[in-house]
Amino acid sequence: MTEYAEITYAVADRIATVALNRPEARNGYTVRMADELAEAFDRADNDEEVRVVVLTGEGRDFSVGADLSQGGFDFDAEQGPDPQWQEPAGRCSKRIFLMNKPVIAAIRGAAIGGGVTITLSADYRLAATDAKFGFVFVRRGIYPEGASAWFLPRLVGLGRAMDWMISGRVFDAEEAEAAGLVHRLHPPEELLDRAYELAADLAANTAPVSVAVTRQLLYRMSSMDSPFPVHELDSKLIAGIMHNPDSVEGVLSFLQKRQPEFGLKVNADLPGYLPWLRE
Amino acid sequence: MTEYAEITYAVADRIATVALNRPEARNGYTVRMADELAEAFDRADNDEEVRVVVLTGEGRDFSVGADLSQGGFDFDAEQGPDPQWQEPAGRCSKRIFLMNKPVIAAIRGAAIGGGVTITLSADYRLAATDAKFGFVFVRRGIYPEGASAWFLPRLVGLGRAMDWMISGRVFDAEEAEAAGLVHRLHPPEELLDRAYELAADLAANTAPVSVAVTRQLLYRMSSMDSPFPVHELDSKLIAGIMHNPDSVEGVLSFLQKRQPEFGLKVNADLPGYLPWLRE
Amino acid sequence: MTEYAEITYAVADRIATVALNRPEARNGYTVRMADELAEAFDRADNDEEVRVVVLTGEGRDFSVGADLSQGGFDFDAEQGPDPQWQEPAGRCSKRIFLMNKPVIAAIRGAAIGGGVTITLSADYRLAATDAKFGFVFVRRGIYPEGASAWFLPRLVGLGRAMDWMISGRVFDAEEAEAAGLVHRLHPPEELLDRAYELAADLAANTAPVSVAVTRQLLYRMSSMDSPFPVHELDSKLIAGIMHNPDSVEGVLSFLQKRQPEFGLKVNADLPGYLPWLRE
Repeated sequence: MTEYAEITYAVADRIATVALNRPEARNGYTVRMADELAEAFDRADNDEEVRVVVLTGEGRDFSVGADLSQGGFDFDAEQGPDPQWQEPAGRCSKRIFLMNKPVIAAIRGAAIGGGVTITLSADYRLAATDAKFGFVFVRRGIYPEGASAWFLPRLVGLGRAMDWMISGRVFDAEEAEAAGLVHRLHPPEELLDRAYELAADLAANTAPVSVAVTRQLLYRMSSMDSPFPVHELDSKLIAGIMHNPDSVEGVLSFLQKRQPEFGLKVNADLPGYLPWLRE
Repeated sequence: MTEYAEITYAVADRIATVALNRPEARNGYTVRMADELAEAFDRADNDEEVRVVVLTGEGRDFSVGADLSQGGFDFDAEQGPDPQWQEPAGRCSKRIFLMNKPVIAAIRGAAIGGGVTITLSADYRLAATDAKFGFVFVRRGIYPEGASAWFLPRLVGLGRAMDWMISGRVFDAEEAEAAGLVHRLHPPEELLDRAYELAADLAANTAPVSVAVTRQLLYRMSSMDSPFPVHELDSKLIAGIMHNPDSVEGVLSFLQKRQPEFGLKVNADLPGYLPWLRE
Repeated sequence: MTEYAEITYAVADRIATVALNRPEARNGYTVRMADELAEAFDRADNDEEVRVVVLTGEGRDFSVGADLSQGGFDFDAEQGPDPQWQEPAGRCSKRIFLMNKPVIAAIRGAAIGGGVTITLSADYRLAATDAKFGFVFVRRGIYPEGASAWFLPRLVGLGRAMDWMISGRVFDAEEAEAAGLVHRLHPPEELLDRAYELAADLAANTAPVSVAVTRQLLYRMSSMDSPFPVHELDSKLIAGIMHNPDSVEGVLSFLQKRQPEFGLKVNADLPGYLPWLRE
């Protein structure tokens, strides 16, 4: 099923499942796991059959964070890293940020440190009622990573982000949901089923190119100084729908009360003028 | 009462009411409606008698979104639009953004697609308990418009915005209120009365110039990189209150426990150094 | 205990307490109070013994806002201020923003106008169940100050910020907590005890340098256009932990299930490459 050592990767029914796979170590996060995750998201993004990705963990925990018993970082400890070196949680969170396809994180048990920051760029965080979260960095003498200082305030507001990151305290699933970190709670035994139901709904009913553009509109344009440049891009996109077969199908299928069949592909049909494609 | 074809416009007791007026089509949004809305907000903004605007819809729905039976867009479908062409939802949402006066959207029934994005720049969204919302674009093979990628995350956080825009699902008034999209819920038959009560309170008790400045402070300065330039502007504004008759009246009326009578006008008395006036 | 006229300052158990001290005037805010607050926060920030600051008010109210009976501003009313003049609420809120140490505001009774805006840059706002809040500026013919147009939408979202600032209405502690303005509510007689418990937990269990960096990461990096530059800084910080004694102690104490003893000091040991140190 996979050539990975610390994750698993499988595709079925247009849904890719990426799972952290070190249950014996409560999915302790390693540099290898980071790189395998980034590679798996590349693969899912490039596979036309895949419409949605579910990110989860084998065993009872999502991830307890960095596994320091695994030899530390991929640079010489004496010399230090070269300036391009990337902290491992961000190798995953940035790759998810760049996805053209939605990512649903399904979180059971512990999601601590890097075990939660790698999920902050997912479109959805569904959690089991037994999940526990913690941005515990300040209690270990370290720092928040994975660009979590950018993502977390956007998800839960600056006040709650300060609380969680300045105290480093561990909090439960209900608090996570009330604050908006988690979209929905489910009993642990139902969590994956609910994640796949959501994934199946997205795969069946949404247009891939529309989703890819919308995802990046939200990520890229919401930080602009004003709504005017955002609306310039909206206007280009909407002007184009008159010759867009997915838009025609979307409206027709709605009027005909049937499931849509969208034909455009994210790897071929993204509008060429999207500013983030030039990166 | 009005020369408009697809909206109505009326002024009473310092409150302008702008209503979508195609109830036979559930207030399906058209290019003409967009332009009439923009013109009506111009009119309300320029009318010194108007202190507050209520935006609502005739009939049982606010708006089901773009009415595609009405002939599409105002450009040649073969040639495409010129580069200045503006997508219709944004013609309304941007005009509301620029208002010097508060706008209260009162939403009954369906507020779908453009039917909700045109309200995102209003100061208030009051909704009937029977309201339904949907950012359904990805289900139609199209894209969020009206600069909604800028407004929505600011209102409900990036996580809920992703959920609503990536799934395109329709959700009810309670979910809208819990997320912060809607300020308050009211029974359908009371909705307009509550909107007018709020409008009357704002008209009676707040200083027009203070409101205009505050509205734009929130819209323009909250996206700055840091609080320092925001406080530079605050300092200029506060330094000016020593010679500001509305500030004197505001304090006196408070001490005398009476209704204030503010004399400054938004069309004549905005401080000339406000950076957004130079646009 | 202190040389201040309008505040008090005391240090015990690594916690500095800064208290507004004009209870006879319900802690009405003055220019002198603003300058004493800024000086007290300087002092707490520079005192190596201080790990956390509690900001509160003597008497039954936190502060009813600007005390206009105290002679207005520190510039000549005829000539106006010089261009560097700083509005008084921002003298406090900006100084708290710059702190290297967490600030917990403990709010009883009225927190109105400047009496709430000076707390918006604190890490925590704990409130008594009898607290009342109001951004009442538009009702007095004045303007929000203290850079509150920058802070408030980050804490409660743009929709609630508009509501509170456009209406100027006074609201209670429950509404403040539901919106995220306040982190936790406590009975008035327990409020200070709960604030000190939280302060003691932060002082005992978190690394000072980690907290200082995390605080500014959240304040400075969350406004960036994208997560990429944020992760560049994260990577530098995380690369450095291999030779960081606090990181070693943080992990060791965790593994040994004992209280950590962090040795690094914020005034000597902040990484020199932090971009905000160059201001």
